[in-house]
Amino acid sequence: MSDQSTTNAPQAPDILRCAYMEIVVTDLKASREFYVDVLGLVVTEEDENAIYLRTFEEFIHHNLVLRQGPEAAVAAFGFRVRSPKDLDLAEEFYRARGCRVERKKDGFVKGIGDAVRVEDPLGFPYEFFYEIEHVERLAWHYHLYGPGALVRLDHFNQITPDVPTAVQYMEDLGFRVTEDIQDEEGTVYAAWMRRKPTVHDTAMTGGDGPRMHHIAFATHEKHNILAICDKLGALRRSDAIERGPGRHGVSNAFYLYLRDPDGHRVEIYTQDYYTGDPDNPRVTWDVHDNQRRDWWGTPVVPSWYRDGSRVLDLDGNLVPLVHRTEASELEQTIGADGFSYTRSPDEGEMPDWKKGEFKLGHSL
Amino acid sequence: MSDQSTTNAPQAPDILRCAYMEIVVTDLKASREFYVDVLGLVVTEEDENAIYLRTFEEFIHHNLVLRQGPEAAVAAFGFRVRSPKDLDLAEEFYRARGCRVERKKDGFVKGIGDAVRVEDPLGFPYEFFYEIEHVERLAWHYHLYGPGALVRLDHFNQITPDVPTAVQYMEDLGFRVTEDIQDEEGTVYAAWMRRKPTVHDTAMTGGDGPRMHHIAFATHEKHNILAICDKLGALRRSDAIERGPGRHGVSNAFYLYLRDPDGHRVEIYTQDYYTGDPDNPRVTWDVHDNQRRDWWGTPVVPSWYRDGSRVLDLDGNLVPLVHRTEASELEQTIGADGFSYTRSPDEGEMPDWKKGEFKLGHSL
Amino acid sequence: MSDQSTTNAPQAPDILRCAYMEIVVTDLKASREFYVDVLGLVVTEEDENAIYLRTFEEFIHHNLVLRQGPEAAVAAFGFRVRSPKDLDLAEEFYRARGCRVERKKDGFVKGIGDAVRVEDPLGFPYEFFYEIEHVERLAWHYHLYGPGALVRLDHFNQITPDVPTAVQYMEDLGFRVTEDIQDEEGTVYAAWMRRKPTVHDTAMTGGDGPRMHHIAFATHEKHNILAICDKLGALRRSDAIERGPGRHGVSNAFYLYLRDPDGHRVEIYTQDYYTGDPDNPRVTWDVHDNQRRDWWGTPVVPSWYRDGSRVLDLDGNLVPLVHRTEASELEQTIGADGFSYTRSPDEGEMPDWKKGEFKLGHSL
Amino acid sequence: MSDQSTTNAPQAPDILRCAYMEIVVTDLKASREFYVDVLGLVVTEEDENAIYLRTFEEFIHHNLVLRQGPEAAVAAFGFRVRSPKDLDLAEEFYRARGCRVERKKDGFVKGIGDAVRVEDPLGFPYEFFYEIEHVERLAWHYHLYGPGALVRLDHFNQITPDVPTAVQYMEDLGFRVTEDIQDEEGTVYAAWMRRKPTVHDTAMTGGDGPRMHHIAFATHEKHNILAICDKLGALRRSDAIERGPGRHGVSNAFYLYLRDPDGHRVEIYTQDYYTGDPDNPRVTWDVHDNQRRDWWGTPVVPSWYRDGSRVLDLDGNLVPLVHRTEASELEQTIGADGFSYTRSPDEGEMPDWKKGEFKLGHSL
Repeated sequence: MSDQSTTNAPQAPDILRCAYMEIVVTDLKASREFYVDVLGLVVTEEDENAIYLRTFEEFIHHNLVLRQGPEAAVAAFGFRVRSPKDLDLAEEFYRARGCRVERKKDGFVKGIGDAVRVEDPLGFPYEFFYEIEHVERLAWHYHLYGPGALVRLDHFNQITPDVPTAVQYMEDLGFRVTEDIQDEEGTVYAAWMRRKPTVHDTAMTGGDGPRMHHIAFATHEKHNILAICDKLGALRRSDAIERGPGRHGVSNAFYLYLRDPDGHRVEIYTQDYYTGDPDNPRVTWDVHDNQRRDWWGTPVVPSWYRDGSRVLDLDGNLVPLVHRTEASELEQTIGADGFSYTRSPDEGEMPDWKKGEFKLGHSL
Repeated sequence: MSDQSTTNAPQAPDILRCAYMEIVVTDLKASREFYVDVLGLVVTEEDENAIYLRTFEEFIHHNLVLRQGPEAAVAAFGFRVRSPKDLDLAEEFYRARGCRVERKKDGFVKGIGDAVRVEDPLGFPYEFFYEIEHVERLAWHYHLYGPGALVRLDHFNQITPDVPTAVQYMEDLGFRVTEDIQDEEGTVYAAWMRRKPTVHDTAMTGGDGPRMHHIAFATHEKHNILAICDKLGALRRSDAIERGPGRHGVSNAFYLYLRDPDGHRVEIYTQDYYTGDPDNPRVTWDVHDNQRRDWWGTPVVPSWYRDGSRVLDLDGNLVPLVHRTEASELEQTIGADGFSYTRSPDEGEMPDWKKGEFKLGHSL
Repeated sequence: MSDQSTTNAPQAPDILRCAYMEIVVTDLKASREFYVDVLGLVVTEEDENAIYLRTFEEFIHHNLVLRQGPEAAVAAFGFRVRSPKDLDLAEEFYRARGCRVERKKDGFVKGIGDAVRVEDPLGFPYEFFYEIEHVERLAWHYHLYGPGALVRLDHFNQITPDVPTAVQYMEDLGFRVTEDIQDEEGTVYAAWMRRKPTVHDTAMTGGDGPRMHHIAFATHEKHNILAICDKLGALRRSDAIERGPGRHGVSNAFYLYLRDPDGHRVEIYTQDYYTGDPDNPRVTWDVHDNQRRDWWGTPVVPSWYRDGSRVLDLDGNLVPLVHRTEASELEQTIGADGFSYTRSPDEGEMPDWKKGEFKLGHSL
Repeated sequence: MSDQSTTNAPQAPDILRCAYMEIVVTDLKASREFYVDVLGLVVTEEDENAIYLRTFEEFIHHNLVLRQGPEAAVAAFGFRVRSPKDLDLAEEFYRARGCRVERKKDGFVKGIGDAVRVEDPLGFPYEFFYEIEHVERLAWHYHLYGPGALVRLDHFNQITPDVPTAVQYMEDLGFRVTEDIQDEEGTVYAAWMRRKPTVHDTAMTGGDGPRMHHIAFATHEKHNILAICDKLGALRRSDAIERGPGRHGVSNAFYLYLRDPDGHRVEIYTQDYYTGDPDNPRVTWDVHDNQRRDWWGTPVVPSWYRDGSRVLDLDGNLVPLVHRTEASELEQTIGADGFSYTRSPDEGEMPDWKKGEFKLGHSL
């Protein structure tokens, strides 16, 4: 899409979509069991050090790389660009911002050709590539589908201390904000941004960062997500479920959050809406609205706010964390001082039985 | 069915199924809004004092009676029997147990003819009837279905202090236990019992009683239950959701618990299994098994254990509560002294992130 | 259930439900591929001559026996009775009707103990048994479920020339009619009859008989049935689909008809309604109603009316066919002389584009 | 998107997506009943001459305009462009092709501002616009959803005699082919083309044209589509169903085709795949493949091939039809001379029962 703002800064590369994530896992066998045997991702190729996985509707080599390593972390957030020349634009874009940039004609991982990796202004390892090996799109291979088949990579979610700064950078990079969470004073707690016309390719969540909050895969229908829960129960692995299933307020999608064997968070997600028009209306949610993160009012568990995966620099070292100094969504809404609401007071009080429950559930 | 145990005691009436509940509500208009406008139950008839509701696949006059009254309570748990003569058996059955029995040739509520009401040994107001007005089964009337259409009354759930005593009485009455929850010392926390060949027509839940825990309506599919949640969110009434949606361990059904405007608990339920063979295997769950009440390990909220609706005697007065003296499931599993597990220790530890969460969620 | 009519004839055995079918297949390997690899039935045990299969929610040894043989046929329609003494009643019931009866203390197939087989008055090989080996109910084993998991045996369907005669016999045997198809002259084209409180345990379809029309397995939801179609497409076996998927008028269930490698017809079925009350209203459909067999008006393919599986006598020989002399449903509704309607004429004409289509589709 | 081929011809406007269709109906009341009462589209505004309808997730004024007129036809295929300047490009693009072009600063229909309408090289009335009134996106308004809620306009489908010529024109206009149907001699029977990254914004179907084949709305899940069928049955309007429901081979989507009171064809559609990468692999189907148009092998009804809606020129007159001279898909596959296959011969023959059926179903 050509809808980037025109500034004096270098032109942004034309990003198509979030395309893959490379994560470091500490027990490749355990991770394989989780992503392949439990979640049913398709193995494109694998060796003793890494496994390349894709979703059923994907035609590029992979959507997820699991790499054996000493410490759980994220090595790259990979975005596909429209053409080879966009790699040059990516290099210029980041060099102009003083970022470290590396380019490899043969790619950083298997399946991918010419690629650029950067340590971006927020400290995240972003990769841009166009060349990638095509593999069979298994969309029609229903004999291989399990009840919870993952059909697409949908989005990333990143933790960063200063959301407005992150949003400005991402808008320069050509992303558009579709939804966000703010309070009455204008503090931004999270923002969702897209290139492809869904609610997001990535989101910025306020917190100590840079960290990876989650990677999200899409299913076709809601029952597919429920089937994943049922299967985890059958395997006596239900404690891999961190939050959900539920309906998001933000994005209107149906969701489930899992934690993989290293604690990396994986969302299963389905059915957000088309956002591709340039004047697509932004939805801003009040941080005190109980239904913003779960449309049914189910409280978010604290670990979901608290935990995230560390990210690596281009040398493979952990990027140091910067502390968020602005208000915390956890504390604003479910902490000791927090308050929140389901509806405006003139529309009716919370029922008595729920009030007690609310305090119990939230007074941590 | 003729599968009652033969004892010296009077023969039990041949009960077909749980058929309706009469509940007292304090604001009939608010209750109508909840049961008709939100949940979509069908109004068979109504006046200023009472509303008679049924499900889409029902052909008898009603499955639920809402009656305006000064205090929220349950006036009757109605069971349909196989034939008129079973009313005589019901009378004898309860008189032999020293219970108060009333019989009305014209019924206690509209639509029903000859009926027997009793104050049963556990203090519950049970009604037995055969004669009832037939109404149109709306099963094929899809133009009237909403996305969360309730198609059947599935079961009741009752709170009583001493579950084994309650089970013995219900077995004398011809019910069969399909599942229960026990601990290693044999304490029974709850038991599920059926006449029709589903997991239950009613269940006995340990607690101060007699109280009504919930009434449950069935949908066809899981997405129907999710649609009810979505609608409650859209109406900004998500705080009517108490627990779920989720998958039960016990019964294997998909569930949602709501609270009506008076706090009466309503379950929406779908897809348990056939239990009609006399040697149907009983499933006993360990009270410490995290997946017994929610297959996905989602903790039960305390209000779900704590709250219940008071019941009325045949004069319309609240039946006094008897305190449960045996161990409490709440305390056994999520209280300060409780412990629970997702799998046996040799199958793997709970992940670290969850341990903390677990304490937070449970240390009430 | 004890709701049989009391006559001078011997008391009927108390039948619980249709429980299993034994079919002869000509290529056991091909049949295994169809029932196990494609449909996902669970193998309880197997040897070179026979495979014993069950559904996910079943706790008895099998719901289907595939036996290698020289000619495709049905060897037994198996019904489970309430107690061992019902086998004596079964013997008496059929001997009083002059039928051939055999009893084997060790059963006719593996897993089953004492059993009675008869050549019934309509020529069908019926089996009655109580003793059967219990196996694990896999209801909670979601890690083994495919997207189209079959969870229960639901019913049989039999072809017989004279439906009213068949209905009378089945009512004597304790069955109750829930729905039927008639014309304005009272000709009965088909009738559905139940013991367990669903729409049927078996149905009688008018045609040259005795033949087996189909055996039906239940799924939990409609998407499970669609998933079976998708999988057949992926395997390039879509020509195993004979009719559907669709919504039945009769029974209100969602359905799909397949043909196995020998042409035996298998229905996949979900979501009919509770019929367990003795005064459950019978639904009679007009044979000319386009929506009786498919609620969406999709024409029934001729093979569905035409084809059926031959049945074996107790010596293993094909039972000769008796020709139906009454009107044929095929000819009444879609044959050259047939007519049918979607609604009454005063509610509106069929659209012009459909009229042509209708003739084309039906003028065979 | 900026992925148009660069030619000497004028630059194409940057089209975002198919956005709305204006159709002429002969009985506005009957059409309102169909689109609003039965299908549940949302009325944005209406008067005695026209009704403006939208889907639940739409934020622009309308996706469908019903206009009362003397003869059923299509008045405009409306596409939204990225910016106002794209209207100038559209004017130039069509003028360079010698097409009649009209521009109205106040739009041709309510809700839309500056707009260009053309009589395109194939004879279709195309409209391009950017300015449009925003209305509320009702995505979260679940209290208004019916069981078959339509959430997006997905695509158009057009009938034209010469598909390759049409494809060349559409590629010049910036569309990309995602799938097509050909025979072994290279005859193209249909092609699917997209701007937004789904399988199509419009498709070209070979036949006498210009005619409109159908307009398609999306639901979230497959059961939503089944619910529309169930509702039509309940309303005794099942003869509005022309084809399906089923799974497409092309697009892999789940579908249903209806005919509105004037015979305009409406598709209900869900779950195709992402196509937004420039090297998205094109899928070419063999016209003889039984699973190309229905993955389950269900034959396409002849009316679906035969019928289409006439289109209007900019004066409101019917555009004359041009006859297709190339091979007809109907005749190639289900006509007297047609043949088709489910799998390659070495993978197994069609079963005998199906062979007969096949002839019956196809020998029109």
